[in-house]
Amino acid sequence: MAKVNENYLKLPGSYLFSAIGKRIREYEAAHPQAEVIHLGIGDVTQPIAPAIIEALHGAVDEMGRAETFRGYAPDLGYSFLRNVIAEKDYRGRGCDISPDEIFISDGAKCDCGNIQEIFGTENRIAVCDPVYPVYVDSNVMGGRTGEFDPEIGRYKGIIYMECTKENGFVPELPKEVPDMIYLCFPNNPTGEAITKEQLQKWVDYANEHDSVILYDAAYEAYISEEELPHSIYECEDARDCAIEFRSFSKTAGFTGLRLGFTVIPKGLKTGGKELWPLWARRHGTKYNGAPYIIQRAGEAVYSEEGQRQIREQIEVYRSNARCIYDGLKQAGYEVTGGVNAPYIWLRTPGQMTSWEFFDLLLSEANVVGTPGSGFGPAGEHYFRLTAFGSRENTVKAVGRIQQL
Amino acid sequence: MAKVNENYLKLPGSYLFSAIGKRIREYEAAHPQAEVIHLGIGDVTQPIAPAIIEALHGAVDEMGRAETFRGYAPDLGYSFLRNVIAEKDYRGRGCDISPDEIFISDGAKCDCGNIQEIFGTENRIAVCDPVYPVYVDSNVMGGRTGEFDPEIGRYKGIIYMECTKENGFVPELPKEVPDMIYLCFPNNPTGEAITKEQLQKWVDYANEHDSVILYDAAYEAYISEEELPHSIYECEDARDCAIEFRSFSKTAGFTGLRLGFTVIPKGLKTGGKELWPLWARRHGTKYNGAPYIIQRAGEAVYSEEGQRQIREQIEVYRSNARCIYDGLKQAGYEVTGGVNAPYIWLRTPGQMTSWEFFDLLLSEANVVGTPGSGFGPAGEHYFRLTAFGSRENTVKAVGRIQQL
Repeated sequence: MAKVNENYLKLPGSYLFSAIGKRIREYEAAHPQAEVIHLGIGDVTQPIAPAIIEALHGAVDEMGRAETFRGYAPDLGYSFLRNVIAEKDYRGRGCDISPDEIFISDGAKCDCGNIQEIFGTENRIAVCDPVYPVYVDSNVMGGRTGEFDPEIGRYKGIIYMECTKENGFVPELPKEVPDMIYLCFPNNPTGEAITKEQLQKWVDYANEHDSVILYDAAYEAYISEEELPHSIYECEDARDCAIEFRSFSKTAGFTGLRLGFTVIPKGLKTGGKELWPLWARRHGTKYNGAPYIIQRAGEAVYSEEGQRQIREQIEVYRSNARCIYDGLKQAGYEVTGGVNAPYIWLRTPGQMTSWEFFDLLLSEANVVGTPGSGFGPAGEHYFRLTAFGSRENTVKAVGRIQQL
Repeated sequence: MAKVNENYLKLPGSYLFSAIGKRIREYEAAHPQAEVIHLGIGDVTQPIAPAIIEALHGAVDEMGRAETFRGYAPDLGYSFLRNVIAEKDYRGRGCDISPDEIFISDGAKCDCGNIQEIFGTENRIAVCDPVYPVYVDSNVMGGRTGEFDPEIGRYKGIIYMECTKENGFVPELPKEVPDMIYLCFPNNPTGEAITKEQLQKWVDYANEHDSVILYDAAYEAYISEEELPHSIYECEDARDCAIEFRSFSKTAGFTGLRLGFTVIPKGLKTGGKELWPLWARRHGTKYNGAPYIIQRAGEAVYSEEGQRQIREQIEVYRSNARCIYDGLKQAGYEVTGGVNAPYIWLRTPGQMTSWEFFDLLLSEANVVGTPGSGFGPAGEHYFRLTAFGSRENTVKAVGRIQQL
């Protein structure tokens, strides 16, 4: 008799964004006249930039001709893409990362979810609270946690690091030493960034304890303050303890195209075992590469034209972030984030729970956001809004919230 | 201190096709004049059909306009694709499969590798020998096997079902009952098919023992004999025990586009637990969908024009298969497969090992194939050639082998 993976049964309910989607569909079905504005899930709204569209068309044509057709991609991704990433994202910022340390994939969510596989189930993980649910859920599925405790909304066996107003939403070094540490900066969901000095402390801590940092830098393109680190490899000795995840989703609007990458420095060891060959083996065995045409689209992101165009797009989202931030502040809300990230993190008014505020916003303002408690108990009484709507909808949504 | 997943260390050497690729690159570097013909890895050579290229261009244009841009895809895939698959691949063949039982993905290799995650590590798996390495390696990584025994070339704890000339390369029902049974028909690597009566016996066996069959039907488009089953759901009560994997790679040349799907019938339970919600949860948590433009390409495969064009392509590969089959038979080789599959499985001459024959073929005929022993010890003294080369190269390769 086949037995299922009982760890899956520890997961309460469905994946956060699937649950929110269901609630919205129900509301919209019951109120077909409502003009609902979506500032919930972090999905972009601007179309793919012209330089990237041109590259896609070119690559599609290549696939249609025998002389230029491409079958299976190289295991780690095409060199044309890995080379330009190493050059522009890393060496250009003084980080010593080479192309063969970059693994191209179909997105940072998949990589963040899959990376735990190369680690033993006995490892203790640490996550921020609030936290992007994928880090936690994938470790639950992998058997690296105990049961979910509904009383406190947390899993047994995980080290939770609270990110609160008091610590500026940057966690303190945990007293109980974790084996695997998930960090995400600029942060989802709080929208707060980390300074190089703060991040260096984490790198030093991990190196001291032979812990591994899993660093999600999916939102680095939104950093506006110059001195902030875009990559963990800007810190000294980060090659000895850190894996980094990057995404094209928020940088260039690839949520529907699917492209990302993971950096694992060669020589990065834990417990005396090198990690690069394990991830390479996983890539070779359980994955078959991102589509050629999407990798060409990724290359176009780094062209001069592509860079100019995506910067314009990011500027639109940034100005949305400012509009939400300023508008809510004016209306008396307590607001953080938004300066170096596309997320605004606000305190719900009058001690409302996050889900109460979700329902209020949906029914009274027809605006969708994400309940902070969906990211963990420390997110209770908070709420996330994203800057990824259209300019028009963002202005309208802020106006409606101000009139609540 | 972080510990790695020690199961990975059980894997000897690298993934088979990565190992072969390395050996070819070394040979080509040492013999730059050699005109090497690749009939090894199962990668297609014909360009994507015009109707599909047109759909790709159309979808790319949609991504470039704000009104038609698409972000995150629905968790299970777009309805337009799931509907047409359910209609054409299943209901059209009398199989009771609905669109919401179809999970769109970036390929059958990934799905075959990932599916084991939803099962407990205590399950005993059964695989054919020879076998597509992904089924085995992914279960080794998942901790469902013992150590590799280099003496016999097998992992402890796996039930190996030999596929030999004597049983027509269709395995017998194992005496020791497995929990999870991997079957692939038409088979990779032997190229042999299974009859509906034979497959029904497996379904009955699995239902009797509450085992789950993981059925890889990636090559069903190559079936030429009318009465053979294209799907396991053509068998009675297969909905109660079987998961099926399908691929666009060999059907429509999508090896570089990446698209496939997995079918999990609702209500399929094992040990009293339903499997559909577990895979849905995995999709939602650790995956983010195949790119919109690729899903549109998949839809075009089912259009009238698309069907006509891909059938022409498959006919080219089929005639390659006949050319290899007949040519090797004439030259005195013992050959099977090729009639309902794009693979030809031949016995090496004069008791040569599979790798000896690989080296001979590479150095003397400049033809690359795949050593049968790479698929398991029962594949020793066998060799796989694929029909995916160009017509010209296939004819040339057969001529060179005949002259050995």
